[in-house]
Amino acid sequence: MRTYVDCMPCFMNQAIRGPRRFTDDPGVVEAIGREVAAELARYDFHDPPPVLGGTVNRIISRHLGVRDPYLDEKRRFNGLALELLPALRERIERSPDPFETAVRLAVAGNAIDFGSPGGRTDGRLAELIEEALSADVAGGGTAAIARLGEATARAGSILYLADNAGEIVLDRLLIERLPPGAVTVAVRSGPVINDALRADAEQAGLNEVAAVIESGVAMPGTPLDLCSADLRERFRSADLVISKGQGNFETLSEAPRAVWFLLMIKCEVVARHAGCAVGDLVVLPPAAA
Amino acid sequence: MRTYVDCMPCFMNQAIRGPRRFTDDPGVVEAIGREVAAELARYDFHDPPPVLGGTVNRIISRHLGVRDPYLDEKRRFNGLALELLPALRERIERSPDPFETAVRLAVAGNAIDFGSPGGRTDGRLAELIEEALSADVAGGGTAAIARLGEATARAGSILYLADNAGEIVLDRLLIERLPPGAVTVAVRSGPVINDALRADAEQAGLNEVAAVIESGVAMPGTPLDLCSADLRERFRSADLVISKGQGNFETLSEAPRAVWFLLMIKCEVVARHAGCAVGDLVVLPPAAA
Repeated sequence: MRTYVDCMPCFMNQAIRGPRRFTDDPGVVEAIGREVAAELARYDFHDPPPVLGGTVNRIISRHLGVRDPYLDEKRRFNGLALELLPALRERIERSPDPFETAVRLAVAGNAIDFGSPGGRTDGRLAELIEEALSADVAGGGTAAIARLGEATARAGSILYLADNAGEIVLDRLLIERLPPGAVTVAVRSGPVINDALRADAEQAGLNEVAAVIESGVAMPGTPLDLCSADLRERFRSADLVISKGQGNFETLSEAPRAVWFLLMIKCEVVARHAGCAVGDLVVLPPAAA
Repeated sequence: MRTYVDCMPCFMNQAIRGPRRFTDDPGVVEAIGREVAAELARYDFHDPPPVLGGTVNRIISRHLGVRDPYLDEKRRFNGLALELLPALRERIERSPDPFETAVRLAVAGNAIDFGSPGGRTDGRLAELIEEALSADVAGGGTAAIARLGEATARAGSILYLADNAGEIVLDRLLIERLPPGAVTVAVRSGPVINDALRADAEQAGLNEVAAVIESGVAMPGTPLDLCSADLRERFRSADLVISKGQGNFETLSEAPRAVWFLLMIKCEVVARHAGCAVGDLVVLPPAAA
């Protein structure tokens, strides 16, 4: 998905609101705003928004003088989700369709997002999860979840593109229901907003149930041409690819292979592109599937 | 008032939403967005927001190839207000405090604004007016209105800095209650958003009850150092100055003389600066008055 002109005020907002969580110095925020404005003026809009997201994040980190400003927030959301994990696992097991329940929880986790206008940045995870368990499923609906269950059962290799910290703990509940030994989870290679890194995958215990690799980029998405050769090869050769979140959707919505997209819609631009509405819990099957 | 970093996303929004009223071509909107972003990157934030507003407006007009994109909207809002004029004049005359009612109507008119996030761009003027007649008055409250009435009665020369088209028709109701022959109304010198020009003052019939001059700038405010020498001299020498709207407030809040500010608050930045809330109907007396 290309970057749209509507992304410009949104990036300006991120450039200003993000840093304010970490500094009271208006001069620092102004310097960040100016530099982001200069990037917007020259950005190649054919590139997807997460490429600019990576640049904005580097600008913010440099001006704040902090490599990973969201480190504490990531740990906190991992912790909140880990506290809920045993009860949620039991809930999945007791539910009439455990796979569907696991998918719903994984998509609900995608609401934890410090980069999108519609992302949730408070600790009210439990409430969100209750909503997601009974909400309508946009995209392919619950039929798509059933098809995903069948497709994953047949898959010898599954590439699971993770999105955010906190969310990655709920991803574990879904990964536990995928064929043992089949799953490779890809996280970002460096800090970017609250996106999950290797440390978050480990805090979530994902290394116990899957292989964990890095994408090769510190961007809130998976822009294939910028990712590592290893990531690209795994993306090409996996029997099945599950992509979590808006940033991965924005970078892979026109990818040259079938991808299952699981995400919450957090802005109008992505809503239009996906044919959904802001707030929708989406399971989007591959066009050709 | 200086420009704040929060004005950056707001200007990006204006740069994109404004032009969309006039073109369906995303390439034109993108080109405007890029050029405005470049201006934001190098803007002197010590200047008040209306100076940048003037620049943004010139960029939009140039890319649209239209000198005065809001011309039809301005005529329409003047017409809507003119239709209400006889009934409102009667209402003022019948009210217990005609001067206060006239001030309330003039401030209500300031809600018509295509440049601010909280501006009203629909035709529901009558509704707005009903609200304004009984709303709380922020700033100095109704006591300030009474003091303004006394001060204007003593003033031999009053400079009335107009703001928007449509609004200027309601300004007429207040100007009719000021000392005959005392009032000079200043409008902008060239098209900028929906700000009132000489043609709007004439459509409102202001030339029948006041002298009409131009500010010397095509900016949505009155940045004295950029205005004509004539405007500056009248501003300096008038017995009393009434300033309508946010743009005039933003450019004159630290002016070296007493100014009465009448405005609706339409954004958080001005709200903080004025010590009011968004949506407030404000009558702000001079600090020393």
